[in-house]
Amino acid sequence: MSYDPNNIFAKILRGEAPCIRIFEDDQTLVIMDIMPQSEGHVLVLTKEAAAQIFELSEEAAAACMRTARKAALAVKAALEPAGVILAQANGAAAGQTVPHLHVHVIPRRDGQFLAMHAAKPADPAQLEKIAERIKAAWPA
Amino acid sequence: MSYDPNNIFAKILRGEAPCIRIFEDDQTLVIMDIMPQSEGHVLVLTKEAAAQIFELSEEAAAACMRTARKAALAVKAALEPAGVILAQANGAAAGQTVPHLHVHVIPRRDGQFLAMHAAKPADPAQLEKIAERIKAAWPA
Repeated sequence: MSYDPNNIFAKILRGEAPCIRIFEDDQTLVIMDIMPQSEGHVLVLTKEAAAQIFELSEEAAAACMRTARKAALAVKAALEPAGVILAQANGAAAGQTVPHLHVHVIPRRDGQFLAMHAAKPADPAQLEKIAERIKAAWPA
Repeated sequence: MSYDPNNIFAKILRGEAPCIRIFEDDQTLVIMDIMPQSEGHVLVLTKEAAAQIFELSEEAAAACMRTARKAALAVKAALEPAGVILAQANGAAAGQTVPHLHVHVIPRRDGQFLAMHAAKPADPAQLEKIAERIKAAWPA
Protein backbone atom coordinates (compact mmCIF):
# COMPACT_ATOMS: atom_id res chain seq x y z
CA MET A 1 0.00 0.00 0.00
CA SER A 2 1.69 3.23 -1.10
CA TYR A 3 1.21 6.32 1.01
CA ASP A 4 -1.58 8.68 -0.12
CA PRO A 5 -1.14 12.11 1.54
CA ASN A 6 -4.84 12.85 0.94
CA ASN A 7 -6.12 10.10 3.22
CA ILE A 8 -8.46 11.32 5.98
CA PHE A 9 -5.96 10.84 8.82
CA ALA A 10 -3.30 12.83 6.96
CA LYS A 11 -5.86 15.60 6.55
CA ILE A 12 -6.72 15.47 10.26
CA LEU A 13 -3.00 15.65 11.14
CA ARG A 14 -2.62 18.73 8.90
CA GLY A 15 -5.69 20.36 10.47
CA GLU A 16 -7.59 20.15 7.18
CA ALA A 17 -10.31 17.85 8.52
CA PRO A 18 -12.08 17.92 11.90
CA CYS A 19 -11.56 15.43 14.71
CA ILE A 20 -12.39 14.95 18.35
CA ARG A 21 -8.93 15.28 19.86
CA ILE A 22 -7.86 13.50 23.04
CA PHE A 23 -4.09 13.89 23.22
CA GLU A 24 -1.16 14.99 21.09
CA ASP A 25 2.61 14.82 21.39
CA ASP A 26 5.51 15.21 18.95
CA GLN A 27 4.97 11.82 17.31
CA THR A 28 1.32 10.88 17.83
CA LEU A 29 -2.25 12.18 17.86
CA VAL A 30 -5.12 10.45 19.69
CA ILE A 31 -8.68 10.98 18.45
CA MET A 32 -12.10 9.44 18.92
CA ASP A 33 -13.07 6.89 16.28
CA ILE A 34 -16.24 8.41 14.80
CA MET A 35 -17.53 4.95 13.82
CA PRO A 36 -16.68 3.19 17.08
CA GLN A 37 -16.72 -0.56 17.53
CA SER A 38 -17.60 0.05 21.19
CA GLU A 39 -18.12 3.08 23.43
CA GLY A 40 -14.75 4.74 24.05
CA HIS A 41 -12.99 3.44 20.92
CA VAL A 42 -10.02 5.73 20.28
CA LEU A 43 -7.33 5.82 17.59
CA VAL A 44 -3.63 6.52 17.98
CA LEU A 45 -2.28 8.05 14.76
CA THR A 46 1.42 8.23 13.99
CA LYS A 47 2.58 11.59 12.65
CA GLU A 48 5.08 9.80 10.42
CA ALA A 49 3.80 9.38 6.85
CA ALA A 50 3.41 5.59 6.72
CA ALA A 51 0.51 3.51 5.49
CA GLN A 52 1.52 0.29 7.23
CA ILE A 53 3.88 -1.00 9.90
CA PHE A 54 6.17 -2.30 7.13
CA GLU A 55 7.08 1.30 6.21
CA LEU A 56 7.03 2.72 9.74
CA SER A 57 10.31 3.57 11.51
CA GLU A 58 11.16 1.65 14.67
CA GLU A 59 11.08 4.87 16.67
CA ALA A 60 7.61 5.81 15.42
CA ALA A 61 6.36 2.29 16.22
CA ALA A 62 7.66 2.66 19.79
CA ALA A 63 6.06 6.10 20.10
CA CYS A 64 2.69 4.70 18.99
CA MET A 65 2.81 2.04 21.66
CA ARG A 66 3.85 4.48 24.39
CA THR A 67 0.81 6.59 23.53
CA ALA A 68 -1.47 3.55 23.09
CA ARG A 69 -0.52 2.43 26.61
CA LYS A 70 -1.56 5.85 27.95
CA ALA A 71 -4.79 5.69 25.94
CA ALA A 72 -5.54 2.22 27.36
CA LEU A 73 -4.93 3.51 30.90
CA ALA A 74 -7.17 6.54 30.31
CA VAL A 75 -9.99 4.54 28.72
CA LYS A 76 -9.82 1.97 31.52
CA ALA A 77 -9.89 4.63 34.25
CA ALA A 78 -12.58 6.75 32.61
CA LEU A 79 -15.01 4.09 31.41
CA GLU A 80 -14.11 1.00 33.48
CA PRO A 81 -14.60 -1.57 30.72
CA ALA A 82 -13.94 -5.21 31.65
CA GLY A 83 -11.18 -5.36 29.04
CA VAL A 84 -9.34 -3.34 26.41
CA ILE A 85 -7.97 -4.58 23.11
CA LEU A 86 -5.28 -2.89 21.04
CA ALA A 87 -5.27 -3.66 17.32
CA GLN A 88 -3.23 -2.43 14.37
CA ALA A 89 -4.22 -3.60 10.90
CA ASN A 90 -1.99 -3.69 7.83
CA GLY A 91 -3.68 -4.22 4.49
CA ALA A 92 -7.32 -4.57 3.43
CA ALA A 93 -7.09 -8.32 4.13
CA ALA A 94 -6.36 -7.42 7.76
CA GLY A 95 -9.27 -4.98 7.98
CA GLN A 96 -7.35 -1.74 7.36
CA THR A 97 -9.68 0.94 5.96
CA VAL A 98 -7.55 4.13 6.13
CA PRO A 99 -4.07 3.97 4.57
CA HIS A 100 -2.30 5.79 7.41
CA LEU A 101 -0.85 3.83 10.31
CA HIS A 102 -3.06 3.82 13.42
CA VAL A 103 -3.58 1.74 16.54
CA HIS A 104 -7.12 1.01 17.72
CA VAL A 105 -7.74 1.09 21.47
CA ILE A 106 -11.11 -0.58 21.99
CA PRO A 107 -12.93 -1.15 25.28
CA ARG A 108 -14.46 -4.61 25.65
CA ARG A 109 -17.40 -5.41 27.89
CA ASP A 110 -18.54 -8.82 29.05
CA GLY A 111 -21.11 -10.38 26.75
CA GLN A 112 -20.98 -7.46 24.31
CA PHE A 113 -19.92 -8.11 20.74
CA LEU A 114 -17.96 -5.49 18.86
CA ALA A 115 -19.80 -3.45 16.25
CA MET A 116 -18.60 -3.83 12.67
CA HIS A 117 -15.46 -1.87 11.89
CA ALA A 118 -16.03 1.56 10.29
CA ALA A 119 -19.73 0.88 9.82
CA LYS A 120 -21.93 3.32 11.73
CA PRO A 121 -21.20 6.91 12.82
CA ALA A 122 -21.77 7.67 16.50
CA ASP A 123 -23.63 10.75 17.77
CA PRO A 124 -20.99 13.55 17.81
CA ALA A 125 -22.34 15.10 21.04
CA GLN A 126 -22.06 11.73 22.75
CA LEU A 127 -18.51 11.25 21.39
CA GLU A 128 -17.53 14.67 22.77
CA LYS A 129 -18.81 13.70 26.22
CA ILE A 130 -16.85 10.44 26.22
CA ALA A 131 -13.76 12.28 24.94
CA GLU A 132 -13.95 14.68 27.90
CA ARG A 133 -14.01 11.77 30.34
CA ILE A 134 -11.02 10.09 28.65
CA LYS A 135 -9.07 13.36 28.58
CA ALA A 136 -9.76 13.88 32.29
CA ALA A 137 -8.33 10.42 33.02
CA TRP A 138 -5.22 10.79 30.81
CA PRO A 139 -2.11 9.68 32.77
CA ALA A 140 0.65 12.16 33.56
CA MET B 1 -5.76 -9.32 36.74
CA SER B 2 -2.94 -9.91 39.25
CA TYR B 3 0.32 -11.36 37.98
CA ASP B 4 0.70 -15.14 38.36
CA PRO B 5 4.38 -16.13 37.98
CA ASN B 6 3.31 -19.68 37.11
CA ASN B 7 1.53 -18.75 33.88
CA ILE B 8 2.80 -20.59 30.80
CA PHE B 9 4.59 -17.59 29.27
CA ALA B 10 6.45 -16.91 32.52
CA LYS B 11 7.56 -20.55 32.49
CA ILE B 12 8.71 -20.23 28.87
CA LEU B 13 10.65 -17.05 29.73
CA ARG B 14 12.37 -18.89 32.62
CA GLY B 15 13.19 -21.85 30.35
CA GLU B 16 10.89 -24.14 32.36
CA ALA B 17 8.53 -24.85 29.45
CA PRO B 18 9.34 -25.45 25.78
CA CYS B 19 8.67 -23.06 22.93
CA ILE B 20 9.54 -22.57 19.28
CA ARG B 21 11.77 -19.53 19.52
CA ILE B 22 12.09 -16.94 16.76
CA PHE B 23 13.91 -14.00 18.32
CA GLU B 24 15.05 -12.70 21.68
CA ASP B 25 16.49 -9.46 23.00
CA ASP B 26 16.88 -7.89 26.46
CA GLN B 27 13.21 -6.99 26.79
CA THR B 28 11.26 -9.37 24.55
CA LEU B 29 10.96 -12.96 23.32
CA VAL B 30 9.22 -13.97 20.08
CA ILE B 31 7.76 -17.47 19.78
CA MET B 32 5.38 -19.36 17.52
CA ASP B 33 1.77 -19.51 18.77
CA ILE B 34 1.18 -23.25 19.09
CA MET B 35 -2.56 -22.79 18.51
CA PRO B 36 -2.29 -20.37 15.60
CA GLN B 37 -5.20 -18.36 14.25
CA SER B 38 -3.47 -18.46 10.87
CA GLU B 39 -0.24 -19.88 9.45
CA GLY B 40 2.68 -17.83 10.75
CA HIS B 41 0.96 -16.50 13.90
CA VAL B 42 3.72 -15.40 16.29
CA LEU B 43 3.68 -13.91 19.79
CA VAL B 44 5.84 -11.15 21.21
CA LEU B 45 6.24 -11.64 24.96
CA THR B 46 7.48 -8.90 27.25
CA LYS B 47 10.11 -10.01 29.75
CA GLU B 48 8.66 -7.60 32.31
CA ALA B 49 6.31 -9.34 34.75
CA ALA B 50 3.00 -7.73 33.76
CA ALA B 51 -0.35 -9.35 33.07
CA GLN B 52 -1.86 -6.42 31.17
CA ILE B 53 -0.88 -3.15 29.54
CA PHE B 54 -2.24 -1.30 32.57
CA GLU B 55 0.67 -2.64 34.68
CA LEU B 56 3.32 -2.52 31.94
CA SER B 57 6.02 0.17 32.02
CA GLU B 58 6.12 2.65 29.15
CA GLU B 59 9.59 1.43 28.20
CA ALA B 60 8.49 -2.21 28.05
CA ALA B 61 5.47 -1.23 25.92
CA ALA B 62 7.77 0.55 23.48
CA ALA B 63 10.13 -2.46 23.38
CA CYS B 64 7.21 -4.78 22.57
CA MET B 65 6.21 -2.63 19.62
CA ARG B 66 9.78 -2.36 18.31
CA THR B 67 9.95 -6.14 18.30
CA ALA B 68 6.41 -6.56 16.95
CA ARG B 69 7.35 -4.32 14.00
CA LYS B 70 10.31 -6.59 13.25
CA ALA B 71 8.09 -9.66 13.59
CA ALA B 72 5.57 -8.14 11.15
CA LEU B 73 8.37 -7.42 8.66
CA ALA B 74 9.74 -10.95 8.98
CA VAL B 75 6.34 -12.64 8.68
CA LYS B 76 5.48 -10.47 5.67
CA ALA B 77 8.79 -11.21 3.93
CA ALA B 78 8.80 -14.93 4.75
CA LEU B 79 5.18 -15.84 4.09
CA GLU B 80 3.88 -12.99 1.90
CA PRO B 81 0.40 -12.79 3.43
CA ALA B 82 -1.93 -10.13 1.98
CA GLY B 83 -2.10 -8.46 5.39
CA VAL B 84 -0.84 -8.64 8.96
CA ILE B 85 -2.74 -7.70 12.10
CA LEU B 86 -1.21 -6.88 15.47
CA ALA B 87 -3.42 -7.42 18.51
CA GLN B 88 -2.87 -7.12 22.24
CA ALA B 89 -5.69 -8.20 24.56
CA ASN B 90 -6.20 -7.11 28.16
CA GLY B 91 -8.72 -9.06 30.21
CA ALA B 92 -10.84 -12.11 29.49
CA ALA B 93 -13.54 -9.84 28.05
CA ALA B 94 -10.98 -8.78 25.42
CA GLY B 95 -10.00 -12.37 24.60
CA GLN B 96 -6.87 -12.63 26.77
CA THR B 97 -6.17 -16.25 27.67
CA VAL B 98 -2.67 -16.11 29.24
CA PRO B 99 -2.12 -13.57 32.04
CA HIS B 100 1.26 -12.34 30.78
CA LEU B 101 1.44 -9.42 28.38
CA HIS B 102 1.89 -10.43 24.73
CA VAL B 103 1.32 -9.02 21.27
CA HIS B 104 -0.14 -11.25 18.56
CA VAL B 105 1.28 -10.84 15.05
CA ILE B 106 -1.15 -12.61 12.74
CA PRO B 107 -0.92 -13.00 8.96
CA ARG B 108 -4.19 -12.36 7.13
CA ARG B 109 -5.02 -13.80 3.74
CA ASP B 110 -7.76 -12.70 1.36
CA GLY B 111 -10.99 -14.59 1.87
CA GLN B 112 -9.59 -16.60 4.78
CA PHE B 113 -11.24 -16.30 8.18
CA LEU B 114 -9.13 -16.49 11.32
CA ALA B 115 -9.28 -19.71 13.31
CA MET B 116 -10.66 -19.45 16.84
CA HIS B 117 -8.19 -18.06 19.35
CA ALA B 118 -6.26 -20.71 21.34
CA ALA B 119 -8.44 -23.50 20.01
CA LYS B 120 -6.47 -26.08 18.02
CA PRO B 121 -2.78 -27.05 18.31
CA ALA B 122 -0.81 -26.99 15.06
CA ASP B 123 1.53 -29.77 13.94
CA PRO B 124 4.87 -29.05 15.74
CA ALA B 125 6.98 -30.12 12.74
CA GLN B 126 5.06 -27.72 10.51
CA LEU B 127 5.45 -24.93 13.09
CA GLU B 128 9.21 -25.53 13.16
CA LYS B 129 9.39 -25.21 9.37
CA ILE B 130 7.47 -21.93 9.40
CA ALA B 131 9.63 -20.68 12.28
CA GLU B 132 12.78 -21.31 10.24
CA ARG B 133 11.40 -19.25 7.36
CA ILE B 134 10.46 -16.36 9.69
CA LYS B 135 13.87 -16.47 11.39
CA ALA B 136 15.60 -16.35 8.01
CA ALA B 137 13.62 -13.21 7.11
CA TRP B 138 14.18 -11.43 10.45
CA PRO B 139 15.29 -7.81 9.79
CA ALA B 140 18.71 -6.61 10.91
